[in-house]
Amino acid sequence: MKSLVIVSHPAIDTSLNQQFFKEAMNGTNATWHHLEEMYPDGQIDLALELQLLKEHDRIIFQFPFYWYSAPAHLKLWQDTVLEHASLELRGKELGIVLTTGVAEKEYQSGGKEEYTISEFLRPYQRIANKLMMSFLPPYVMSQFMYQSKEKKWERLIAYQQYLTLKEKPTLANRIDWFIAQMRANDTLKSIGEPMQEYVIDYLEKAKEDIEDLTFTLRELKE
Amino acid sequence: MKSLVIVSHPAIDTSLNQQFFKEAMNGTNATWHHLEEMYPDGQIDLALELQLLKEHDRIIFQFPFYWYSAPAHLKLWQDTVLEHASLELRGKELGIVLTTGVAEKEYQSGGKEEYTISEFLRPYQRIANKLMMSFLPPYVMSQFMYQSKEKKWERLIAYQQYLTLKEKPTLANRIDWFIAQMRANDTLKSIGEPMQEYVIDYLEKAKEDIEDLTFTLRELKE
Repeated sequence: MKSLVIVSHPAIDTSLNQQFFKEAMNGTNATWHHLEEMYPDGQIDLALELQLLKEHDRIIFQFPFYWYSAPAHLKLWQDTVLEHASLELRGKELGIVLTTGVAEKEYQSGGKEEYTISEFLRPYQRIANKLMMSFLPPYVMSQFMYQSKEKKWERLIAYQQYLTLKEKPTLANRIDWFIAQMRANDTLKSIGEPMQEYVIDYLEKAKEDIEDLTFTLRELKE
Repeated sequence: MKSLVIVSHPAIDTSLNQQFFKEAMNGTNATWHHLEEMYPDGQIDLALELQLLKEHDRIIFQFPFYWYSAPAHLKLWQDTVLEHASLELRGKELGIVLTTGVAEKEYQSGGKEEYTISEFLRPYQRIANKLMMSFLPPYVMSQFMYQSKEKKWERLIAYQQYLTLKEKPTLANRIDWFIAQMRANDTLKSIGEPMQEYVIDYLEKAKEDIEDLTFTLRELKE
């Protein structure tokens, strides 16, 4: 499973979110593909793009909300590439990594942003369906800078899993992923924080969840 | 009431819809502003755009659905202009003139396009609300080439009214508009079809509607 992360951000050097994502991606086999850097003049190389799509299984659009959709560069990519890519994309997955400056809870009826993120993302969901792709629940990162260190760690793990875990992972998949991560490399550690404690904590919680579920199932059977 | 029609279409010369709209617009005092023609290299003149917004009361985004939203050029305009335009736009109206190649009835649950046009337009609706503008119900033109001559006439009138009539027009407003059109100029006629018959028909229907309503009101009072 190999992910292509199509990033659109016109001022990426100023974005803490995107720096965070780029570092987190080092622990995976995903490909980082930043459109504004690659095509500053907007002349998209169609053949190259189709080749990239062909070589990956999960396509991810990663962007900040600019007026409730992707920045213009990603729209240009869509308008240029998608009509030629139905063969390359059929049967694959489309994910969205979205960053917002406004808290996620404001995206609801009565919230400051009025509509849900799912409603704003309808065009992308429909694109996935039209191209016979599977649409993944979006990964949303809101107000990154206000989050605690622990929360940031959680979000880093969730991001790596979004790029690498199979669709709709079970708890067992997530635990397997952790164990593999711990064994295979020390990328997570190299980012600058020992994650031992976090992992032990996570695995213990997971174990508790499994024990609870086993108990409940036993109850139901009796 | 003066409308600014911000058109986005990368291949406008091939578009029957846009030709139709451009001719229909001649009968009004609206301003046609085609982004791809004005800014082929995407270098948008912010000062000019703000001046245009200032000089108009109703702002209309006119475009074909490209992957369920506007073409990249309009998105670029949004990303460039809107953050600087809150003063120019506050209290004004935002309309959408949308063309689709797929029949309008396919935009619903269970239809080929799955979601309603209103759902796909949420980002624009939210933009209007955020900028303290009034969001008009969209004018949707689907499968223009398949429509009868009569239907095309109806759509032409509806388009001209979308550009010129006040928000949520009453029947009386629409009749007044017709009479003014007939008296003031012969633009409609000049497009190549005598519309006398259509107008008489329309006014007669309107008269009937008014009589029906008057009758119903009288019944309710008794």
